[in-house]
This record gives sequence, structure tokens and C-alpha cells, in this order.
Amino acid sequence: MTRTPAPDDRLEAAKGGCTDWFARPPVTMADELRALASVAGADSTERDLYGDGGPVALLEARVAQELAAEAAVFFPSGVMAQQAALRVWCDRSGSRRVAMPDLSHLLVHEEDGPRVLHGFEVCHLTTGPVTPTAVDVEALPGHVGAVLVELPLRDGGYLLPDLVELQAISATCRYRSIPLHLDGARLWEAAAGLGVPPHEVSALADSTYVSFYKGLGGLAGAAVGASADVAEELRLWRRRLGGTVFTAYPVALAALHGLETMLPRMGELHAYARELAAALPGRGFVVAPQEVRSLAFRVFAPGTPTELRDRAVSVMERDRVALPHQWRAADLPGWVWTEVTVTPHVAARPIEASAELLGRLLG
Amino acid sequence: MTRTPAPDDRLEAAKGGCTDWFARPPVTMADELRALASVAGADSTERDLYGDGGPVALLEARVAQELAAEAAVFFPSGVMAQQAALRVWCDRSGSRRVAMPDLSHLLVHEEDGPRVLHGFEVCHLTTGPVTPTAVDVEALPGHVGAVLVELPLRDGGYLLPDLVELQAISATCRYRSIPLHLDGARLWEAAAGLGVPPHEVSALADSTYVSFYKGLGGLAGAAVGASADVAEELRLWRRRLGGTVFTAYPVALAALHGLETMLPRMGELHAYARELAAALPGRGFVVAPQEVRSLAFRVFAPGTPTELRDRAVSVMERDRVALPHQWRAADLPGWVWTEVTVTPHVAARPIEASAELLGRLLG
Repeated sequence: MTRTPAPDDRLEAAKGGCTDWFARPPVTMADELRALASVAGADSTERDLYGDGGPVALLEARVAQELAAEAAVFFPSGVMAQQAALRVWCDRSGSRRVAMPDLSHLLVHEEDGPRVLHGFEVCHLTTGPVTPTAVDVEALPGHVGAVLVELPLRDGGYLLPDLVELQAISATCRYRSIPLHLDGARLWEAAAGLGVPPHEVSALADSTYVSFYKGLGGLAGAAVGASADVAEELRLWRRRLGGTVFTAYPVALAALHGLETMLPRMGELHAYARELAAALPGRGFVVAPQEVRSLAFRVFAPGTPTELRDRAVSVMERDRVALPHQWRAADLPGWVWTEVTVTPHVAARPIEASAELLGRLLG
Repeated sequence: MTRTPAPDDRLEAAKGGCTDWFARPPVTMADELRALASVAGADSTERDLYGDGGPVALLEARVAQELAAEAAVFFPSGVMAQQAALRVWCDRSGSRRVAMPDLSHLLVHEEDGPRVLHGFEVCHLTTGPVTPTAVDVEALPGHVGAVLVELPLRDGGYLLPDLVELQAISATCRYRSIPLHLDGARLWEAAAGLGVPPHEVSALADSTYVSFYKGLGGLAGAAVGASADVAEELRLWRRRLGGTVFTAYPVALAALHGLETMLPRMGELHAYARELAAALPGRGFVVAPQEVRSLAFRVFAPGTPTELRDRAVSVMERDRVALPHQWRAADLPGWVWTEVTVTPHVAARPIEASAELLGRLLG
């Protein structure tokens, strides 16, 4: 008796049969570990120990340099990094009120941790998929402990204010004496989108969180750039939160490698993202945001999530190339969307080849 | 003009010149990464992703099995693991009062994080370098949210109650309906010291924290074994605390390797530790505790910290073997102490050879 494969089984089988991949080819952990062993600095016995020395210290120095910050502090995750940063600012300012977009990662993906652990009182800097403005900062009521701006706002569809808007936000925060913290999970990408080096963005803020495993392609981990005295307090909170680990050298080496190899390519990948986004409407897609200011954007297609998934599986079975198969219903009935991120593997194809690959989902 | 080397420079130079090491030879990160690439399971593309799947799932299953627990939850650090466990118990019991030794890791090494982040109200289960008893549990005043017992109490000099005492503590906690949490940073070692498998110890408690980078020799990381419903809550707190990271596979693979290769050797290493501790008084040392119930103990010597350090450096320069050089003043004036931990490298020597090596510090 032959069992009809469940949709997930069919998807897994189709993925397993692929010989090309839209976003990136799968790599074994063993290969990745061997590659890490060749990263500059790995051929040493000097590990980091509970946050000090070794690759973690090298990474912190490198991040501080890229952000033109006095110091940078490594964290195992962005969740912890941003809690620590906001906590330092709130403790200093004597107010638990933090302003952030209602679509902030802290409110959408963190199980209410920031409020539960630190007693933050959250007010919404913006509502929905919009970029913040200086007027939003001006309108915040009362004594605000910190303002958080996410660059770009991922759950708004990778929305990024332009540099003039960011400067106005920064100036308004300073005028109101509110510390400005940047959620720069994709700061390297955003800086490329704005056409400036990362330190021109971080210079607008009092603290900047950056991530090592998105555009930089590392294993995990994050850092916060700030003044030396804020960095000292960040280390205190890292210890308290259980983030000062025995050693984190694989993560730190991978991050250093990402800064070395991927950071210089951000401009090129951003240019590709803009061109790819411009090519997709000709294939029947709708793209947002209109102006792509990072390496990622949303692609909308007509259909239901199941239809697009089934279509992706059929193409994978037929052409043996892995395509985006996780589609979500859009607000507009009859439309779905997915995220497309430009990786080096994507950018190795001519724009038209990438557009054509995605176009097969509607073909 | 020749500069007289500062003491630390001389120490570093002496260490750098060594060709043997009392505890373990230094290994480069590159070599360690290449070894990790050969661990069973590394030759796969199935990473853990934000705490799910891959080596982290394998590790959790393996730990649950060793502890005979329904489930185990991976954490990046013991600090976070224990905060999460105590928080779950306090939330369930409706009391913020947690009882633990005044020498507990949570009170000595965590920058007051447990209190600051979770509002725990700490009462001391024991004071100073003693093992807890059922009477200590009975004497706790009022409504207690959780009892923490550290096995062995490291900052008390690796003190471990015997199994009968532990059973009485467990029974008293149950009688009083107080959840019992084990700080098992060295549980694998303690179980060997008690002569029972780890699950006979964890069976006495409601939750058990274990570590992967002490006796198991991993990179970092921890886990908590508990019931399935407690494990679910532990995952919630891990997310909130920023411990659910993008991937932790190097740490998880190293931990799996440690469970495979080191756990079976705990009995042998413990027996060696007992014999070495018994051999040292003949060399002019005093050893504590009297009955070594883990892989580590304190060694006391006459002198000052500087004298012992200088003596260690001189021996390292002369014999090119690295010896313990970090000595702390004991309570008793004129005496100092250091910790000795039996690693596989130590245990590869005849007992008398190890004792003789340490004896050179007084020779």
C-alpha cells in the first residue's frame, strides 16, 4: 500500500532533491567548523575566557572601530544585548519608559521578556509599517528613559528612514535628553542602503546593537557599541543575564570572518537587491518597500499560502532548484508575501536569472 | 638597558617555555574546531535553529536520558539556566523566597542578577563551608519558593553531602512542598563521588542543572533536566533572557562529545582524585575536604601567595612543567590554597608522579 506523502514530507523530499538553491546551498556543520579553523586568529591557544581576551576581545575592538564607538561589548544574542542597553539607559535616566515601534522585535518576538525582566513601560514610537520621524519623538509624553529605532524595521517590511530623517530623530532625542538606542540587527545592511559607512549611522545614537549572523553570515551573536562607561555597565548586565560564557570563540571567529569578508560587499549586495526588486514587477510580483534600503524586501504574489507552497514544491521537483516556499497571507485577500534576502549566492547570478527563478513560482 | 621583567611577564615567559603541563596541554582553537568537525553528527546540514533541532535537540535528549528526566533544556550558561529554573518554581509556588547556601554561585559570582532580575528574596540554607542537612530545610521560615543545593559546593571547597543526607533533604523538601533544585555544575563529577549514576542524584530533585565545560571538557553551555511542563516554561524564560540563540551547534557538539567520552571516565577520575589527595599530606600539603567526593579539592601549603607563585615560576623555568601558580591566602595566617582538579591529563600519570610534581612547589 503506497502512502500519499503529507505536504511536509513532499516538501522535504523536494528540497532534498535540489541541486541548486535560490538563497544558499546547504553546508554541513563539519565543513563550516573546518573553515572556521582557517580563520585568522584561530591558530592560537588564547581563547576568550568569560568574556575577556581572545577572539571576543578582537571582535569587540573591531566592532568598536566600525562603529567609531569608544567600546563594544559582545553578547550571545540581540535579545540580551538590547535588554542590557535599554536597562542601562533607563537606570541612568531614572525612567522605565522606553519608546519603540509597536512592530519592534522586543514586542513581537521576545515573549514579553523586556517588560517582565526589567519592568520597562513601553510606549509606541510608531504604529504599523511606517518609519519614525522627529515628530514621533517630540510627541512622546513625559519623561522617557530611552528611544529605540530599528534599522530597518524588519516586521514592517524592512523600512528604513533616510539619513536626514535619522539626523532629525537624533537631534530631537538630544534636545529632549533622551538616549537614542539603535536596533541595528541589520545595521551593516542599512548603512549600505543609506550609502554611508556604519559609523555615520551609529554616530547618531548613544548605543548601537549590531548582529553577526544576518548579513555577515556568522553563527550567532551580537554586540553593542557605546561609550566606555556604558560598555562597563553593559558587561555587568551581560553577567547578570547569563551571557558571559566560558568561551564563545567559534561565534567570535565567525563574526570576525563576516566583518572581514561580508562587510566590504554590503554595497554591492544592496545594489543587487534594488535591481532585483525592480525586475520583479515585470514577472507579476509586487515588491515593498518601494525603495529597498537594505539587502531584503517583501515580495507579494497573487494566491494563497498553500498554492504558492505547492507551486514551489512542484518547481523544486521539476527543476531541482530550491525556491521560497514559506508564504504568508497578506492583508489584501488573495495575496501572499515572502521575504527575499540577497546573499552572495543570490548575487552570483545575473539579475534576470534570479528574477526568472522567482518567476517560475507564478509561471 | 635590560628591563627587569615584571612578575607577570616572568610568569607568562615561564608558562610559554613549558613542555609539560600539570593539568592539561594548551590546544589551539583551530585544532579544537577540526576535532569538533569529526564528532558524530557534525557531518550534517541539520543545525539547531533558535533552540530547535540539530545537535541541541540531540543533546537535550541525551541529557534527559542521563538524568532520567522527562525533558532537558539547553542553556548558554549555568547562570541563565538556574535563574530560569528558580523563576519557574517561584512563579508556581507563589513565593519569591529561595533558600541557598550563602556560598552559592548565585550569591558569589553573579553580580546580584538573580535578585535584580527576578526579585528573589534569598535566605541562606547554610552559612560557610558546610554541607546542608534536612534540619536546615526544616528550619527555613515560612513559605519558600525553592531550595537550591549545590553539588558539590565549590566555594566551600567542593563539599558534598552523602547520599543519605541528600535523600533526607529531598524528603523534607517534599514534605514541606518546596521544589528542590540542584545546582549540578559538577553533577557528573558528584555522582561519581557518590558512586551512583547521575539519575540517582537528579531523581531526588525537581530540577537539575548540569554543565558541559567542567568535567565534560566542552566549550560552554548548560542544561536543566525537569518534567516536560517545567521544561516548556524553561524554554519561555530562555527566550526572555536572550538565551535562545540562532545556532549553538559548536557548543552542543562539544557537549555531546563530552558525554560520550568523559562521562564514562568520571569514576576513574574520582578514584584518582581520592588517591592523589591522600598522597599529598606526605609531601607537606594539607588537603580539604577530608573525603574527596568529586574530581577536585583544595590543597593548602605553608607560605604566602607571592611565595608560592614565585616558587611555581622558578620550577616552571627550571623543569619546563606548568604547575599551579594561583594561590590564595587561607584563613589561617601563613597558609595559602589552590584548587586541584583531576583531568584525563593528570590521571595519565602515576599518582606518585603527580604528587611529586606538586611537591616541587614546596621542595
